[in-house]
Amino acid sequence: MSALDAYKIRQDFAILDQVVNDEPLVYLDNAATTQKPQVVLDTIMAYYREENANVHRGVHTLAERATAAYEASREKIRQFISAKSTKEILFTRGTTTGLNWVGRFAEQVLEPGDEVVISIMEHHSNIIPWQEACKKAGAKLVYAYLKDGQLDMEDLANKISEKTKFVSLAQVSNVLGCINPVKEIAQMAHRVGAYMVVDGAQSAPHMAIDVQDLDCDFFILSGHKMLGPTGIGVLYGKEEILNQMNPIEFGGEMIDFVYEQEATWKELPWKFEAGTPNIAGAIALGTAVDYLSALGMENVHAYEQELVDYVLPKLQAIEGLTVYGPEDSGKHAGVIAFNINGLHPHDVATALDYEGVAVRAGHHCAQPLINHLGISSAARASFYIYNTKEDCDKLVEAILATKEFFNGTL
Amino acid sequence: MSALDAYKIRQDFAILDQVVNDEPLVYLDNAATTQKPQVVLDTIMAYYREENANVHRGVHTLAERATAAYEASREKIRQFISAKSTKEILFTRGTTTGLNWVGRFAEQVLEPGDEVVISIMEHHSNIIPWQEACKKAGAKLVYAYLKDGQLDMEDLANKISEKTKFVSLAQVSNVLGCINPVKEIAQMAHRVGAYMVVDGAQSAPHMAIDVQDLDCDFFILSGHKMLGPTGIGVLYGKEEILNQMNPIEFGGEMIDFVYEQEATWKELPWKFEAGTPNIAGAIALGTAVDYLSALGMENVHAYEQELVDYVLPKLQAIEGLTVYGPEDSGKHAGVIAFNINGLHPHDVATALDYEGVAVRAGHHCAQPLINHLGISSAARASFYIYNTKEDCDKLVEAILATKEFFNGTL
Repeated sequence: MSALDAYKIRQDFAILDQVVNDEPLVYLDNAATTQKPQVVLDTIMAYYREENANVHRGVHTLAERATAAYEASREKIRQFISAKSTKEILFTRGTTTGLNWVGRFAEQVLEPGDEVVISIMEHHSNIIPWQEACKKAGAKLVYAYLKDGQLDMEDLANKISEKTKFVSLAQVSNVLGCINPVKEIAQMAHRVGAYMVVDGAQSAPHMAIDVQDLDCDFFILSGHKMLGPTGIGVLYGKEEILNQMNPIEFGGEMIDFVYEQEATWKELPWKFEAGTPNIAGAIALGTAVDYLSALGMENVHAYEQELVDYVLPKLQAIEGLTVYGPEDSGKHAGVIAFNINGLHPHDVATALDYEGVAVRAGHHCAQPLINHLGISSAARASFYIYNTKEDCDKLVEAILATKEFFNGTL
Repeated sequence: MSALDAYKIRQDFAILDQVVNDEPLVYLDNAATTQKPQVVLDTIMAYYREENANVHRGVHTLAERATAAYEASREKIRQFISAKSTKEILFTRGTTTGLNWVGRFAEQVLEPGDEVVISIMEHHSNIIPWQEACKKAGAKLVYAYLKDGQLDMEDLANKISEKTKFVSLAQVSNVLGCINPVKEIAQMAHRVGAYMVVDGAQSAPHMAIDVQDLDCDFFILSGHKMLGPTGIGVLYGKEEILNQMNPIEFGGEMIDFVYEQEATWKELPWKFEAGTPNIAGAIALGTAVDYLSALGMENVHAYEQELVDYVLPKLQAIEGLTVYGPEDSGKHAGVIAFNINGLHPHDVATALDYEGVAVRAGHHCAQPLINHLGISSAARASFYIYNTKEDCDKLVEAILATKEFFNGTL
């Protein structure tokens, strides 16, 4: 029996029940953004239709209701990632913003000669903030490379040294689909006194996260990749580190006292939340987290593993098709990037779209990895809780049809 | 006849039709955030139920639809504020983020000895970014003060000098309700070669804005204060300035090429939009702008003026009640801050809430102004297109009842 009933889950996602190019939609672009269950949309509607008001500043009834709902969501997220305290849960716009904030903290603490270690598989959002911080601080950005389509742990171990101040890695690669052992790597980082930063954009939606067990110093996620709305994300940071970290944005809400020439800050987490937040977004993310928790993140992970176990061998069996990342489906998360000999991935994605199958094509915001792989782009299918084995079959059929069509025209 | 039919408008706002503390809700906290018409909520729902996908990166049908809707919204906002080009319209999280980005630009261009001129009535979000930028650059933050509850234009003129590099002012004060002549002030700024920054958070929702006519260099607004959702705002900047300005956030979408040690940026406006944006928020803000444009911003302004002409004298006539800002209702926007002799504004707001009247109390994120006025806080009623003269009457009655109640208990 499956860990999840995807057919039952699909009933909560009206968007999936549509026809695209005369074919039923098969949505396999979940690494870019996931769809939202009706209960998340209901939360947004209920918020705007019943309690919309600005938070933290008002004594009137609506303002108190909105504030309570906003802070309740913070607590839900604390539980979801097993943080020690809600002081450690900062609402941001998304993973990119969260990683940029950590990059600003790096500017604050990096010194000339320090090193930052990342991997060649990182998303641009976990590369460029480090390039900038290193440039400003006179520090060095060091890359760990790959072995067998995964992180080369030996290379990583060699790159981490007494000079290392930060290690920052994706827990799951958005191209290779490999799962990096960030708990073990956090220990390696801490052994040399470095901060461990985990880009959880592709992991938090798909597996149980316990930041205390991982013992990472920062963990960053996007709401829209885990059933939540766009424009909301979370930056987790250990309380003692966030206390040292300067605020990134300045303005309303985050202050204690403001004088003409200086100001003092509120305590955590509000020190980092200047201005009116994405209130509806934060509250609806809480509902998304409720939805995932009710399914059980172990079940979510097991179900996606079932899909990968089912589809990866079928893809690997297609002649002329290269799958990137680990060959063993047990080591491969539900993100499968591939290319077909002689076909441009954009043409592949366009052809699949004609069949109703939505996949992505391009550099997937990971140009250094794409260059390292010796390609210019790739197609990518990515799965979530509402995808079924039929979706997998449709993907394989559509790829075969695409191959046939282009071979006929070549 | 009224410029707007508020009773008809109210039918679009289900949230207003509710009972709070056994009284019909009278929502007068619009300077904090406005309610959303059903058509804005419908846009959010339609987006998530029909076309949700990540923008700019995909070739599949949903991604193309989402991208088209997102960019169409940018064009709507360009028209709404009469910008020259959509390259000048950057989506942000809100006004606070926008002002912080301008503050980061200031860090880039300010030099030791330079001066930044703001006024004592500014919101914290238009103060602290300047404190920070000045501290980092060795520049000086200079304040213009008040005369007759408004900006003292003579003082401002004296403060603007050849040393001035930025002048940054609210177009409408969120406490005093005065309207600052930012077009005239932009000329003063430009005469000395300074940049003119307009905090439009309290003006863009309430009056027609033409950034080319104002000739400001930056104009910043929040979506949630003008019928749009939370978590979305706009930073307008002149194209030639934005071209000089460094990106603030780094990551996906905003890049052209990324190498291991360096990266290059996309052209405007995308250079400033790293990571997945608040797609639903941006699209729904477009709908909010459509709604306001259909009413006509001249009508919106005229209608609010009617309300102020009606209610301000009634408030001024209440014994022991002090209204801040211009005495002349013709110079007073729909933001009315007040105190009642001997009563703490929080008690006033709480008492009004018992009567169903939602007003705000506190420092309104303007502590330097509040200190300058010699008070510790104030109550504030703020109006919008769905408020009626009955709402004004209810406010006045509730204030009188509050006075009576507290006088009885004192």
